[in-house]
Amino acid sequence: MKLRNRHKSFDGWVEFYEHDSRATQSPMRFSLYRPPGSEKHPVLYWLSGLTCTEENFTQKSGIQRYLAKYKIACVAMDTTPRNLNLPNETATWELGAGAGYYVNATQEPWAKHYRMYDYVAHELPELISSEFNIDGSRQGIFGHSMGGHGALMIGLRNPENYRSISAFAPICAPSQSPRSQRAFQAYLGADTRTWQEYDTCALLAQVQTRLPILIDQGEDDEFKDAFLQPGLLKAAAFKNDYPIEFRFHPGYDHSYYFVASFIENHIAFHARFLS
Amino acid sequence: MKLRNRHKSFDGWVEFYEHDSRATQSPMRFSLYRPPGSEKHPVLYWLSGLTCTEENFTQKSGIQRYLAKYKIACVAMDTTPRNLNLPNETATWELGAGAGYYVNATQEPWAKHYRMYDYVAHELPELISSEFNIDGSRQGIFGHSMGGHGALMIGLRNPENYRSISAFAPICAPSQSPRSQRAFQAYLGADTRTWQEYDTCALLAQVQTRLPILIDQGEDDEFKDAFLQPGLLKAAAFKNDYPIEFRFHPGYDHSYYFVASFIENHIAFHARFLS
Repeated sequence: MKLRNRHKSFDGWVEFYEHDSRATQSPMRFSLYRPPGSEKHPVLYWLSGLTCTEENFTQKSGIQRYLAKYKIACVAMDTTPRNLNLPNETATWELGAGAGYYVNATQEPWAKHYRMYDYVAHELPELISSEFNIDGSRQGIFGHSMGGHGALMIGLRNPENYRSISAFAPICAPSQSPRSQRAFQAYLGADTRTWQEYDTCALLAQVQTRLPILIDQGEDDEFKDAFLQPGLLKAAAFKNDYPIEFRFHPGYDHSYYFVASFIENHIAFHARFLS
Repeated sequence: MKLRNRHKSFDGWVEFYEHDSRATQSPMRFSLYRPPGSEKHPVLYWLSGLTCTEENFTQKSGIQRYLAKYKIACVAMDTTPRNLNLPNETATWELGAGAGYYVNATQEPWAKHYRMYDYVAHELPELISSEFNIDGSRQGIFGHSMGGHGALMIGLRNPENYRSISAFAPICAPSQSPRSQRAFQAYLGADTRTWQEYDTCALLAQVQTRLPILIDQGEDDEFKDAFLQPGLLKAAAFKNDYPIEFRFHPGYDHSYYFVASFIENHIAFHARFLS
């Protein structure tokens, strides 16, 4: 594992790493915020949206202030492997590089490397807990847009590994939105039954352990109705009697300005379960 | 003036504008944060460093939270005109586009358009005060690196227009550092006497009205000794009996992670004089 660079931030450290991933059979990059203090800190995993690398959230969310205050570490990983020279790897922003959807692909040309589910749910937390002074028994997971989908989906499928889940403007039902359907078909194939294990609305009907969930959604989000479909998740939560704190904010859009405006609430929410 | 886009942020608005500038004879871009509330707000002018546009600070500083809290508007302008097809306009990051040094150039090919001093000190504040619900009698100025130089220099030369000045890791003596000397020579010519009106250390010996000044500097800033030269400014302040609050921070570098870590202190500092 290689430390690419680091910056002091609110008396802690923002660090950028690269390592060879077993899951994706490729180099992968992530950022880590380490709060001040030598004690073992709990950790939040942040999953970013389409097109993002490990840098966008780290630079734009303003989260470091709150991580330092609440004494929580935070890992933000790149959204896919990069520079693999796969066909159409960078042809559109909705498939391939930057658009891994946090699934284990089964279809060519993606099946070998696009295994972001295994990477985020298993390999990365094991690496972080073993390499850093971080308490892997106190983990939370959160994300934005495609990463909100990833956080909800991975959290619901692995409740023993996390204490809390939150999301900003998540893609709530990827198997039901035409835009994410195209990616699911490319990664997982035409049999839509296999899609359900990566679909938050479908998973809600199956989960036994109910982690606390907080979701923030901008009312003026340009992707809300056609892509994110929060109404489907609200309905699924109601139907399955799963309590989700769902907050809608007039005037806010899909950008990091929206994320930054409410990031402290998310840290405070997770801190209730992690600290 | 054209509104390019806007984003709700901490109950206020981040807005990006473009307009045709009289001073630079070109389109210019800036961002404006408008805090919540319908009253006339005081305003801070932010001057960015080399290579930056109006976006870097707006996206990375985390300032909006504090502007909303202290009820202060903030304008961040691009660092030069762009896309003028001048010779060597984009050949290096230390001259031309993104590197205007906030001077009025007198040498070709820069003399017609590179008039950032007039733009920042005069045209832009007049535009902002006339077009927006902003109190132009309560202005502060601040910036980072090349923009810290700009803020100190413009503030010292126009004390009647501002109430307070602050800077992060400013270029303190551009006429004495080889890197900024190259730019000053290109913009202002070989007669170094003309450089002095744009040099903070030189200006300190002349000012009558003493605005309050706060400066933060990272001890591990990679540009500190050879380029920024804070020691020269400390010595000039001492010699001229000008009280500057100069704070040095172990471990911090030149990045926006450093700026973000101390931005609240700067807003609180300016608020004492603006609110």
